[in-house]
Amino acid sequence: MSTLIKNGIIVTTDNEYKGDVFIDGTKIEAVGRHLTMEADKVIDAEGMYILPGGIDQHAHFSFEFMGERTKGFETTDAAALGGTTTVIEFVNQEEGKGLVETVEAYRKEWAEGISMVDYSFHPVITDPTPETFKDIKNLPAAGYPTVKLFMAYKGQFFHSDDEAVTNALLEAKDAGVTVMVHAENADLIDLMQKKAIANGETDPYHHALTRPPIVETEATERAINLARFAEAPIYIVHVTTEGAVNAIKKAKEEGLPVYGETCTQYLLFDKEYLAKEDFEGSKYVCSPALRDKKDQEYLWKSLKDGSINAVSSDHCGFTFEQKKMGLDDFRLIPNGTPGLENRLPMLWTYGVEAGRITRSELVDYYSTMPAKNNGLDHRKGYIAPGYDADVVIYNPMVEKKVTVEDSLNALDYTVYEGFDQIGECDAVFLRGTQVVKDGKYVGEKGQGAFIKGTAFGTAFR
Amino acid sequence: MSTLIKNGIIVTTDNEYKGDVFIDGTKIEAVGRHLTMEADKVIDAEGMYILPGGIDQHAHFSFEFMGERTKGFETTDAAALGGTTTVIEFVNQEEGKGLVETVEAYRKEWAEGISMVDYSFHPVITDPTPETFKDIKNLPAAGYPTVKLFMAYKGQFFHSDDEAVTNALLEAKDAGVTVMVHAENADLIDLMQKKAIANGETDPYHHALTRPPIVETEATERAINLARFAEAPIYIVHVTTEGAVNAIKKAKEEGLPVYGETCTQYLLFDKEYLAKEDFEGSKYVCSPALRDKKDQEYLWKSLKDGSINAVSSDHCGFTFEQKKMGLDDFRLIPNGTPGLENRLPMLWTYGVEAGRITRSELVDYYSTMPAKNNGLDHRKGYIAPGYDADVVIYNPMVEKKVTVEDSLNALDYTVYEGFDQIGECDAVFLRGTQVVKDGKYVGEKGQGAFIKGTAFGTAFR
Amino acid sequence: MSTLIKNGIIVTTDNEYKGDVFIDGTKIEAVGRHLTMEADKVIDAEGMYILPGGIDQHAHFSFEFMGERTKGFETTDAAALGGTTTVIEFVNQEEGKGLVETVEAYRKEWAEGISMVDYSFHPVITDPTPETFKDIKNLPAAGYPTVKLFMAYKGQFFHSDDEAVTNALLEAKDAGVTVMVHAENADLIDLMQKKAIANGETDPYHHALTRPPIVETEATERAINLARFAEAPIYIVHVTTEGAVNAIKKAKEEGLPVYGETCTQYLLFDKEYLAKEDFEGSKYVCSPALRDKKDQEYLWKSLKDGSINAVSSDHCGFTFEQKKMGLDDFRLIPNGTPGLENRLPMLWTYGVEAGRITRSELVDYYSTMPAKNNGLDHRKGYIAPGYDADVVIYNPMVEKKVTVEDSLNALDYTVYEGFDQIGECDAVFLRGTQVVKDGKYVGEKGQGAFIKGTAFGTAFR
Amino acid sequence: MSTLIKNGIIVTTDNEYKGDVFIDGTKIEAVGRHLTMEADKVIDAEGMYILPGGIDQHAHFSFEFMGERTKGFETTDAAALGGTTTVIEFVNQEEGKGLVETVEAYRKEWAEGISMVDYSFHPVITDPTPETFKDIKNLPAAGYPTVKLFMAYKGQFFHSDDEAVTNALLEAKDAGVTVMVHAENADLIDLMQKKAIANGETDPYHHALTRPPIVETEATERAINLARFAEAPIYIVHVTTEGAVNAIKKAKEEGLPVYGETCTQYLLFDKEYLAKEDFEGSKYVCSPALRDKKDQEYLWKSLKDGSINAVSSDHCGFTFEQKKMGLDDFRLIPNGTPGLENRLPMLWTYGVEAGRITRSELVDYYSTMPAKNNGLDHRKGYIAPGYDADVVIYNPMVEKKVTVEDSLNALDYTVYEGFDQIGECDAVFLRGTQVVKDGKYVGEKGQGAFIKGTAFGTAFR
Repeated sequence: MSTLIKNGIIVTTDNEYKGDVFIDGTKIEAVGRHLTMEADKVIDAEGMYILPGGIDQHAHFSFEFMGERTKGFETTDAAALGGTTTVIEFVNQEEGKGLVETVEAYRKEWAEGISMVDYSFHPVITDPTPETFKDIKNLPAAGYPTVKLFMAYKGQFFHSDDEAVTNALLEAKDAGVTVMVHAENADLIDLMQKKAIANGETDPYHHALTRPPIVETEATERAINLARFAEAPIYIVHVTTEGAVNAIKKAKEEGLPVYGETCTQYLLFDKEYLAKEDFEGSKYVCSPALRDKKDQEYLWKSLKDGSINAVSSDHCGFTFEQKKMGLDDFRLIPNGTPGLENRLPMLWTYGVEAGRITRSELVDYYSTMPAKNNGLDHRKGYIAPGYDADVVIYNPMVEKKVTVEDSLNALDYTVYEGFDQIGECDAVFLRGTQVVKDGKYVGEKGQGAFIKGTAFGTAFR
Repeated sequence: MSTLIKNGIIVTTDNEYKGDVFIDGTKIEAVGRHLTMEADKVIDAEGMYILPGGIDQHAHFSFEFMGERTKGFETTDAAALGGTTTVIEFVNQEEGKGLVETVEAYRKEWAEGISMVDYSFHPVITDPTPETFKDIKNLPAAGYPTVKLFMAYKGQFFHSDDEAVTNALLEAKDAGVTVMVHAENADLIDLMQKKAIANGETDPYHHALTRPPIVETEATERAINLARFAEAPIYIVHVTTEGAVNAIKKAKEEGLPVYGETCTQYLLFDKEYLAKEDFEGSKYVCSPALRDKKDQEYLWKSLKDGSINAVSSDHCGFTFEQKKMGLDDFRLIPNGTPGLENRLPMLWTYGVEAGRITRSELVDYYSTMPAKNNGLDHRKGYIAPGYDADVVIYNPMVEKKVTVEDSLNALDYTVYEGFDQIGECDAVFLRGTQVVKDGKYVGEKGQGAFIKGTAFGTAFR
Repeated sequence: MSTLIKNGIIVTTDNEYKGDVFIDGTKIEAVGRHLTMEADKVIDAEGMYILPGGIDQHAHFSFEFMGERTKGFETTDAAALGGTTTVIEFVNQEEGKGLVETVEAYRKEWAEGISMVDYSFHPVITDPTPETFKDIKNLPAAGYPTVKLFMAYKGQFFHSDDEAVTNALLEAKDAGVTVMVHAENADLIDLMQKKAIANGETDPYHHALTRPPIVETEATERAINLARFAEAPIYIVHVTTEGAVNAIKKAKEEGLPVYGETCTQYLLFDKEYLAKEDFEGSKYVCSPALRDKKDQEYLWKSLKDGSINAVSSDHCGFTFEQKKMGLDDFRLIPNGTPGLENRLPMLWTYGVEAGRITRSELVDYYSTMPAKNNGLDHRKGYIAPGYDADVVIYNPMVEKKVTVEDSLNALDYTVYEGFDQIGECDAVFLRGTQVVKDGKYVGEKGQGAFIKGTAFGTAFR
Repeated sequence: MSTLIKNGIIVTTDNEYKGDVFIDGTKIEAVGRHLTMEADKVIDAEGMYILPGGIDQHAHFSFEFMGERTKGFETTDAAALGGTTTVIEFVNQEEGKGLVETVEAYRKEWAEGISMVDYSFHPVITDPTPETFKDIKNLPAAGYPTVKLFMAYKGQFFHSDDEAVTNALLEAKDAGVTVMVHAENADLIDLMQKKAIANGETDPYHHALTRPPIVETEATERAINLARFAEAPIYIVHVTTEGAVNAIKKAKEEGLPVYGETCTQYLLFDKEYLAKEDFEGSKYVCSPALRDKKDQEYLWKSLKDGSINAVSSDHCGFTFEQKKMGLDDFRLIPNGTPGLENRLPMLWTYGVEAGRITRSELVDYYSTMPAKNNGLDHRKGYIAPGYDADVVIYNPMVEKKVTVEDSLNALDYTVYEGFDQIGECDAVFLRGTQVVKDGKYVGEKGQGAFIKGTAFGTAFR
């Protein structure tokens, strides 16, 4: 099966040029002008942009959190429709089991034969035994070049203290594994939550008030100090505060391999959404909490210098019903917002069209850098010969509003409801197979494949 | 009883001038030229400097640490001989007892009727219950405007986690109490110590290697972040690293009430002393650990801008015999170095005479700022009318070597053995009573009095 | 003649205490409690503050600028009434004449026998010949430890280029002379002024618009770079911008002897005053120009850390009639605002009473540091035995409004008209002679004396 | 004429992949795997790297400086041999003539029909009249989107003061023209040079000693301040000091369009080369002067963050004989070092092979960013379809030493004599025509074409 896409504007991380893309089998074979290859299918992309398929390095599927499980890989058609052709999800280690063991089991049970897009995993350390730390060195061979720890969530089984984070850093650096951390000060949050509940402040807005920016800034600075001590790379997930960004920048200026991502929702929402009536605020409960408007602008600017090098969704498919677990106590609201399908169009609308980022930067943050961060850039993240034919044809002429009716997230809401959207994925190819056509999902369950990452993402070499 | 000191050079924090000091009873009554008051005693101070009595805000007496007790208040003649007329010591809360309750009991048992110099106390929180935190508001009325917590020493009863430190900060700021912290990352030290012991590295030098600078820098940054969160003053004891100094400076530039002290030994010794043979290195085991030569120069410079605003001794009178508890395991060496009597002469010799600080700065760091930090400046810290007649006449012409034979520390060694000393206290007055004469201690046991501090040291208002 | 001032609150740069001051002849002889000296005059200062006489290190008298001459030393009763007992004025070198030669001639013609307060001078280099630079080394012996250059005013005879400033720095550092600079970029101002006039923008407000903050910030950074090159101390006069303050702070952190002053008017006025109708705006024409409200707050804060170490008046006594020279062209308005008598009461009212600075800081900025900057602190700037008996008794209970009727500035206006004033100088002594009594000037013309400064102000040693 | 280059490793600014490049006529038509186009010529690039042709944005040909003229465009075969397919040279405005007028005349006289590589020009303002500044707006239409001014060289006809630089900035920003400056403080250099000569210090080493780093740092900070004032883009040529780099970084962090380049020689040489005996030091006389070894490392590191975004040669072809003009006075040595042909191989050897930069970064600094800086990136700087077929096939297996015998610089020396060189340009194509084959120049005089830049390089949009 071969496809020739003609006359689109190919966007790389550094330039744009009008051209054709020739796909043969699962790979991109050529880019050029006036390409004359015979192809099974010819698509005219005149007036459209040709982008590499998106990589969402932070997403959750069939994820159990606070006793509830999110929607699973069967909803990854939403990813495809939003131009994301690879997702990476987090898998909590089961107590007493190895990291590789847990993830492999999880993969087979929850992803294989189900996912509509390619996928990989970040193992999460929850059982900080010597055996667990030793298991880190086995991760790259199994295709997992990252490991994650939670500094937040005091008292939960997946919380890690400084000693655990440091032990992971020390083991990981020699193994070619990048440690990722969820950086929030668990003690401070716990202290504030107890005070709030004692005062009868149980509504969703207090989720934000009990996780103020300093909580994230402190933990980020600490995580980086632990990485300094261990002389190891570190990656900070979902960065939202100016202080955290500055800590990463400072480390980067020292020459340390320290990077972070932010997420779509932190660029577009502020914490006032949590004050919505009728418990609607619960839909915006995620951790770290949404911040203020000024923080959004700061995050947009911070993408520019490469310390915040990716935009993820931190997609979490909890229904409103599930969210209602926390009706009487915001601490019991399952954390997370859905946004798998909105990442590319929202970045395009509020980033590119609003003049905050260039198309090249969008490509970098939503596809190329996530590939580099996770050891996938030998196959993914580029429109260039030899790479996986994950290709998005983006039509910038469409103007519409986001609605839950149009969504494939299998939930009863979307937090982006009513948001303007400029452009949409007219066509999407997953390793050469068209899975979106005329803006509709046309793929099949199970088309996605497990993709092994190589030791240390390029970003950390 | 009245005394007229004639023709000395009076040193204030801002200038020097030749003059006389007239003491009547316990107070300074006048400073002037050609004073003509009739006095019971007239002293000619020609060629000498007149300084306010020193205040050592960080000292330990009869202090139980690692199961051993230091020399007690009966050795405070050493303080007097070294020009220190007030000492402030740390008292660990007893489990289940209140802060005020513990300190008052300690004071009566160990200090009253014994101390040869004036004294006060810093209560140390070891039992982080709601009752303890509520007790903080009772401290100022009892004369204690400070409270201390240990972030270091994982697993010890006196270790505090972030929640405890924050609870203390929140209660203290309304009570007019300044929180002091020993800032070292307990997890990192514990991790390194376990690794060292597992490798058979049991000698005193590994005390330093398992407490590298990042351990202190991280905890100092964290402590300041907790203070930022609580919007409360904080005081960092025994600062030794460039990173910790910078964290304090940065906070100060933001306008936060954050300060710190360093200690004499960090200005004069480096960690190579811990490598001395025959377990001699154990004498230099204190926490934080001694650093490198470059850190000494950085600390001298840092005194200049007021972020490090005092020099204390962190005096700890453990005998070499007691130190030997840790012969086979450096973790069992009682921490601390003696230096009560050396603070002023060493600052004079290696600070003033070496051109690193001015005499006015010496007065500020060794007396006036400690008075302000601890709410004692209504009585102490100045040569001016109305202040307690704590007066040092310092003879700058003496040149000698420090020896244990000349020491009053009641120990079998002094870490300053063989150090050059320029100048000595020719005379010292404690609230008008002469306790040092011709360079010899001439006072009596029990002459010292308990001095109440006022709520919030001036430094923190 | 002797005077005993009883029961005032003596304010030093570091503390306050209730006490008496005994003056005998021209000197302070003693400070104390219950002083019993027999005195010719006894004053009860109960409820009042005793401050050292103010030193205004930046003032202009009989100064020719833009072809007009300001009011002269015969108006220095205004200084005395405002608590300023020493003024230092700038004297432009006459072409072809030496620095010492010019200043001595000026002193004899314009100050001696006239001034009502003590005085000294800053020579201003206008003739940058090798002879002039060599003459710098003769300044200290003649009592002048400073020399000034104007980086602003392109095309004027007193403008200096970078080469002249650097030559001065190189000569001055070995001579113990501090170089002071008026730092504004002459080219940029000239360019903007020509554009403004070409556009018919001739009103006073355009004085401010053609001297934006960057003009000062740039020249300050450049001046400090020249000092870095020459490894010489430098003092920046009338600092008004955040950028200039930061340049000084940065230099200070590097350990360079770089300091600056600001002036009362920059703390209290913004540039909107230049927009006043009927040419009233011309009264506020000074250089650098008045800034915005936010700059005022920044300057107040900047006083705190010692990089901006003094507050001067930059007093310039031009009448409104003289200001009208520039009715049709703001470039012809004689620069400068009167404020000789307002410095202390305005700092007290808008600084101390408003909680922005402490009384000790006021004393430092208005008297002690100016003494140190200019080599006068061997005699002036302190209430302490042996110092000149320049003493202010400030009554903090008075509340009034500033009016030109109450002013001694001999002008037809005061820019502070209608400003609230809390407190006033109840009594002022000039070297032991009372010159202000019950808030009225009672001195005589010619009572002031020339005071020689010592080489390098203490601040620069 | 068509060419198919097979199996090379194509290097972009962001990645590398093995592939083929198909050139048809003057353009790259396709990149791909297993390309099957019929081509007139097929080249096997197995084991070699395929790079875009280099762009040297700072070079001098037939340039008159200090009364001497450099080698001209007839020596640009050296550029081609070194992988540089486009050069941009500086043309001094003739007094009384327009900018466009001067450059067009120069182009016709000195470049057309002569140059062996493509070329463009930067006009240099030397006659700062209103007419000149107005002429800036005519530059883009003529194909010149840059204009340069010299802040250095006091007293020379091409020196510009701050007013001229600012006028240029103000005119240029609206015209889409980027101002470039040679930033050195003219006054300081003049002052030091006069002192040196007066002391009989006439040798080449004093060229460096009289242009210390502060001279460049100051002028760079000033230039950026002028750009801040004018709110205009600015480009700093030949940056060599840490201070200048930091000034650019700071501006960039503020979001200002401020960038700079460095040159090969500042990365490889230190100022001790100027001390070489027998006047050999004169060969290394360029301005700014060579710095110290630590500065070289700082510059390498500074390339990483994009503030220093290009590496040029600042090629100046003066013979040793011409250099001898300054035998008795270093001020008379014509400034400049030859290096046209060494830029790529030296960056490869001491950058890529030494692990300091990646191949992608090399491509960015030596070709892509220079294209963007100068409005050439619509045609040049990329190996991608539609771009000019300026292609370098670099053979990394060659190891040799640089010698003047191998050089095409037409001089009697090369400053790189004896330097190790890893790799060489095996083949070079200029708009589709092969001009280097098997490491030898095979092109013809006059093959180069004038390339018009578009208004504002992409870097400044």
